Amino acid sequence: MPALRYGMVGGGPGAFIGDVHRMAAELDGGAALVAGAFSSDPSASRDKGAALGLAPDRVYGDYRAMAEAEVARSDPIDFVVVVTPNHLHFPVARTFLEAGVPVVCDKPMTTTVEDAETLCRLVAEGGPLFALTYNYTGYPMVDEARAIVRSGRLGRIRRIQLDYFQGWLATSLESTGHRQAGWRTDPERAGVAGALGDIGTHAHDLARYVTGLEVEEVAADLTTFVDGRRLEDDACVLVRWTGGARGTLTASQIAVGEENELVLRVYGTHGSIVWRHADAESLRVSTADGPAEILRRGAPYLDVETQGGSRLPPGHPEGFIEGFANVYRAVIEAIRGPDADGGETTRRFPTVWDGARGVHFLEKAVESARVGGWVDARYDPPGDPGA
Amino acid sequence: MPALRYGMVGGGPGAFIGDVHRMAAELDGGAALVAGAFSSDPSASRDKGAALGLAPDRVYGDYRAMAEAEVARSDPIDFVVVVTPNHLHFPVARTFLEAGVPVVCDKPMTTTVEDAETLCRLVAEGGPLFALTYNYTGYPMVDEARAIVRSGRLGRIRRIQLDYFQGWLATSLESTGHRQAGWRTDPERAGVAGALGDIGTHAHDLARYVTGLEVEEVAADLTTFVDGRRLEDDACVLVRWTGGARGTLTASQIAVGEENELVLRVYGTHGSIVWRHADAESLRVSTADGPAEILRRGAPYLDVETQGGSRLPPGHPEGFIEGFANVYRAVIEAIRGPDADGGETTRRFPTVWDGARGVHFLEKAVESARVGGWVDARYDPPGDPGA
Amino acid sequence: MPALRYGMVGGGPGAFIGDVHRMAAELDGGAALVAGAFSSDPSASRDKGAALGLAPDRVYGDYRAMAEAEVARSDPIDFVVVVTPNHLHFPVARTFLEAGVPVVCDKPMTTTVEDAETLCRLVAEGGPLFALTYNYTGYPMVDEARAIVRSGRLGRIRRIQLDYFQGWLATSLESTGHRQAGWRTDPERAGVAGALGDIGTHAHDLARYVTGLEVEEVAADLTTFVDGRRLEDDACVLVRWTGGARGTLTASQIAVGEENELVLRVYGTHGSIVWRHADAESLRVSTADGPAEILRRGAPYLDVETQGGSRLPPGHPEGFIEGFANVYRAVIEAIRGPDADGGETTRRFPTVWDGARGVHFLEKAVESARVGGWVDARYDPPGDPGA
Amino acid sequence: MPALRYGMVGGGPGAFIGDVHRMAAELDGGAALVAGAFSSDPSASRDKGAALGLAPDRVYGDYRAMAEAEVARSDPIDFVVVVTPNHLHFPVARTFLEAGVPVVCDKPMTTTVEDAETLCRLVAEGGPLFALTYNYTGYPMVDEARAIVRSGRLGRIRRIQLDYFQGWLATSLESTGHRQAGWRTDPERAGVAGALGDIGTHAHDLARYVTGLEVEEVAADLTTFVDGRRLEDDACVLVRWTGGARGTLTASQIAVGEENELVLRVYGTHGSIVWRHADAESLRVSTADGPAEILRRGAPYLDVETQGGSRLPPGHPEGFIEGFANVYRAVIEAIRGPDADGGETTRRFPTVWDGARGVHFLEKAVESARVGGWVDARYDPPGDPGA
Repeated sequence: MPALRYGMVGGGPGAFIGDVHRMAAELDGGAALVAGAFSSDPSASRDKGAALGLAPDRVYGDYRAMAEAEVARSDPIDFVVVVTPNHLHFPVARTFLEAGVPVVCDKPMTTTVEDAETLCRLVAEGGPLFALTYNYTGYPMVDEARAIVRSGRLGRIRRIQLDYFQGWLATSLESTGHRQAGWRTDPERAGVAGALGDIGTHAHDLARYVTGLEVEEVAADLTTFVDGRRLEDDACVLVRWTGGARGTLTASQIAVGEENELVLRVYGTHGSIVWRHADAESLRVSTADGPAEILRRGAPYLDVETQGGSRLPPGHPEGFIEGFANVYRAVIEAIRGPDADGGETTRRFPTVWDGARGVHFLEKAVESARVGGWVDARYDPPGDPGA
Repeated sequence: MPALRYGMVGGGPGAFIGDVHRMAAELDGGAALVAGAFSSDPSASRDKGAALGLAPDRVYGDYRAMAEAEVARSDPIDFVVVVTPNHLHFPVARTFLEAGVPVVCDKPMTTTVEDAETLCRLVAEGGPLFALTYNYTGYPMVDEARAIVRSGRLGRIRRIQLDYFQGWLATSLESTGHRQAGWRTDPERAGVAGALGDIGTHAHDLARYVTGLEVEEVAADLTTFVDGRRLEDDACVLVRWTGGARGTLTASQIAVGEENELVLRVYGTHGSIVWRHADAESLRVSTADGPAEILRRGAPYLDVETQGGSRLPPGHPEGFIEGFANVYRAVIEAIRGPDADGGETTRRFPTVWDGARGVHFLEKAVESARVGGWVDARYDPPGDPGA
Repeated sequence: MPALRYGMVGGGPGAFIGDVHRMAAELDGGAALVAGAFSSDPSASRDKGAALGLAPDRVYGDYRAMAEAEVARSDPIDFVVVVTPNHLHFPVARTFLEAGVPVVCDKPMTTTVEDAETLCRLVAEGGPLFALTYNYTGYPMVDEARAIVRSGRLGRIRRIQLDYFQGWLATSLESTGHRQAGWRTDPERAGVAGALGDIGTHAHDLARYVTGLEVEEVAADLTTFVDGRRLEDDACVLVRWTGGARGTLTASQIAVGEENELVLRVYGTHGSIVWRHADAESLRVSTADGPAEILRRGAPYLDVETQGGSRLPPGHPEGFIEGFANVYRAVIEAIRGPDADGGETTRRFPTVWDGARGVHFLEKAVESARVGGWVDARYDPPGDPGA
Repeated sequence: MPALRYGMVGGGPGAFIGDVHRMAAELDGGAALVAGAFSSDPSASRDKGAALGLAPDRVYGDYRAMAEAEVARSDPIDFVVVVTPNHLHFPVARTFLEAGVPVVCDKPMTTTVEDAETLCRLVAEGGPLFALTYNYTGYPMVDEARAIVRSGRLGRIRRIQLDYFQGWLATSLESTGHRQAGWRTDPERAGVAGALGDIGTHAHDLARYVTGLEVEEVAADLTTFVDGRRLEDDACVLVRWTGGARGTLTASQIAVGEENELVLRVYGTHGSIVWRHADAESLRVSTADGPAEILRRGAPYLDVETQGGSRLPPGHPEGFIEGFANVYRAVIEAIRGPDADGGETTRRFPTVWDGARGVHFLEKAVESARVGGWVDARYDPPGDPGA
């Protein structure tokens, strides 16, 4: 089966996530990069396109020009990947959706709920496929956690604890010219939230994915520790979930000594699961009566869907790119459609509604911190078929 | 040097902490149990005394009788250990303090701030020694964490995360006749808080001990998950500390699959420490620039005070009893006084003021949960020489 | 029930294991030290006795005098603990056994097989109780490993890997006046083996205890890395066990960076167990078909005998002293006899025959290293009721 | 820079390693698969080629036909990847080398030393590039271990312990029709060694790579535990290394419960390193005087060459494919030559001489097991520029 053709917007000099998307999209040979608007600086875009071996006429300095030119071709891109700073997600995604091109967009989806809802409506009203790269949902052992919660083995969920610690913004890295730090701490480009928008949104989505619960109320304490920084770099949030579950969500980028420590703990009436990104191939499953079990990626006793997310035997470490690639695998299957292999596709990818819920959560957490107390955070985005 | 004589109030049938105190107090041969009022049931007290080989005339069915009889002896007890349910800590401790007998009391110190302050005044106004067994401060690697914070190696403290998870109260154990569960979930005997009073108070004191910071504001969400239970079994607290540090404190006793998982994370401007009770002999120390270090109990590179808390070479596991015994070692040295070894004693034990701060924290967290928002939690107990 | 009276031979200045024995023997209140010959230097012995609060007339400068005096008393010691350097184990133990005093002796039991067999015969021919402190067999999770092997859950044992790493003798510590290093590297006092005798013998006994298998053949490579040292400080041994099991046993005291890392791995046809001393309260149990389980000390799902070896709930770390104390608990119960609690005692302690097998293993490993190949290591000590 | 074109021999149905090679070779976009002889069954080869989207005229049923056809093209393959069962490595590699095509070959290189030496001579005498995928040397933290040893920080190496445990061959999987198990346990296709050839050879090369030492003598115990199996499934080897270092190498494929546990421990006079494949992104570095350090992949404090092997920031797990891809990156750079980026290439890949040393080690271990004792294992393959 020939690889799908895709284009990329963003991912120019100093970006790291663009390369991750490319390695992930292409890992299984299902997609090939053929076009790009890598930077708003045409020369930087051209250099990147050349380094990637693209045909010069498919390297653009502007995403609008790219959308227009690509849809006019006989061999157009089959989808576009949006890996720009956050504030551009919306205009770029809308442009391609309106041009009929499926979109894979990085998180958070938009910088306002209003924009998010615009995208929801575009998709709900017959628009092309839209996928959001909440990539942590692509890890097989996250799928296993989800399968276990759904099986009822944990009983009713009571407590969800989410921690996401990084240390790389413990100093004013943005004032040194560091591009990533620059836009991620800039409200004009990052949106209303700093640490919460950059990493907390992953934690929020991860819990939703695994438990199927939604946030009902939040009480947040957002702090900016680094002098001169314009967005919070540390967030502590009390969360009340549907069905009576409670817990905390913390997201910090000033936690010196932490790399990228995302931990999910879900406790039910009968059992619990703990998943740590630093040991992403293991899942601890505990019940009240027996010893903890350490489930491992690739093992034959896992749920059959979980097994479908593995590429290597257990003990041959898979990592970030493979998890990311599982999101792409689902996207590529969905774009090819059910006829491709004669059956329904069952792989999941985060949707535009997941994205909208994420943006709404950020706004409510920020509001809670501003008012200094609990706020109602219930929400159903327009057109969500699952709501 | 002859062992000190001590008595015990509480620790009768079904208690486990009484035996822990006894093993800890006697581990180094510095104290010997000679008297006790182990239960308010005289026959149960007698049986326990006999099992412990005590002289029958020093086994009492009532702590008041014990205090009176012991101080009248020519060989009275040198101190008393109070290991009753919480509501008796205050009357028992006051009785012995007023009788001039040093007191070692389990936590939380009292069930009201008013009672706590009465004890503070008794001690401040010339009363005998009073020690509270916040035993986690007795672990050598907790002392090392404290030494590192004080050395300035972490810089200014920004973030403190405290998690204390247990799963043993995930079902209504109290309705099965389980004695520990019975009184710990009963507001008449446990006090205003459940999980927070039973374990959260340890976390609170641990952070104070290590960082030297105090709580300024709290916003708590307290939940009772088990039907019919009368105190919260799960607590999530946002905490603002002196000096601008922020963080969460969680305490849960319905976290199925967790044994007794107390974790302290302290992040400063320059570095961080992480200490997990499940791996109590290790301390992770990280700085921004180099690899994480795993410091180990018993190692020669530790702070000299930390080394004083070890009994065995590294790699020969010490545990709960040894940590507890370090609190007793400090108490015994302090009772013996500076003349015993010709020098000032330097070992620390938690004081009546630590106890009062703990009780005040509980009250403020409960108040915050009731009002649904932030409350001012600043506090200096009467007579605190450190305030 | 009154505590048994015991005496100690050895454990003077610079020793650490004497204190361990004392804390372990007394942890449960079942024994009280009343006599000692702590050093062959009478003044050092006297000082130690005074520090321990012993009556001066029960502190001896010579173990023979002690044996003679103690058995003549109306309140003699109920047992003696031998914690001297290895070469004195035999004469001291024989003296007390011949005087009718039960003996608890540290390992390795003797420095020659001939001496070991003399002790075996003394015990077999109606002598008093003799226990050897292969203390690693006192850890509850080692008992659990043994119970699992016996249950057949692992199937037939195929592979046993034993690793024991320490780093403290990586330099010529013995030439600095360090007492422990001094005698442990001196063939006159330590016996025929260095690292293998000091720690390898623990590994050998641990595997025997857990699996019930015996060594059949060995091929050893013994190396002395530190210049001027007179005994090997590193041992690598190929071992063939009864029933066809194979594996390695390594013991090194020059493994810089290792504290006291004893690891047991047992693989059967159907499953495996892994136990690490550094995480002594956990036991990994794996089978071919399901996830690994992490069994934990103190948990209700453990074998009932394992549970009997716990003092604290799970999550309240126990360690080296508690494991050691379990050996003493068994000894004390056995000395008291079945009438004490109206039933048969079931706790196990290592016997004189375990000790003899240990000494024989050392001799065979040394012989193998000398001849440079495999040697037959089968052995049944005289009088072994289990052989 | 355009991607290199490569072909593959082997990697047909039931193989997993072919896909690994493909993902690894293409991860950075430096190579594209254009041709293949995936199976000796032409129809299976065709199906695989079609699934991979290859042009039908470049899919072959025979590697000789492939070599002949490819070198005759105007757009020939730039290198070939050999991922057949072991016995075909030699004829395939020789065919392509003689045709002037660079070869990347899986391990063990050949089934006899004689064949290995033939390949050595072909390369030494002006043949094209030959690389062996001892892929564990591609892990960044293995490179860091190597850099640390070379820096002298560990002092002189004394002890090397190598353990490689798998459990997948604990039963007679080969008799169930499992293709991998089939050829790996068949001496006609696997060669003289089973577990030792399949995984032990990785451990041997890993130690050589990290320490720079070579094997001098071996004493091996090889066991076949599974009835009817024709090659050993468990190997325990005593190893003496150049410079006086000693240690063990174990390789087992009947270790139920183990996935793919490769552990390297290197102890020197001053420090040690421990690397576990299950936690491949960490490296424990210990010295005699300070705490253990946990070095992490991607960190800025690592050796500059180590850093060059990372694709993602620390905390974003990389795994097996990335390590493998580092071997390919070095190969691709070397094929492109120094002009490609105007500088010398410095990345390393395992050579034909590494391969020959691996094969020789296997033969000597097997010989040792047969004679039942030590054998001299010193060896320099013909033409080795480093010998």
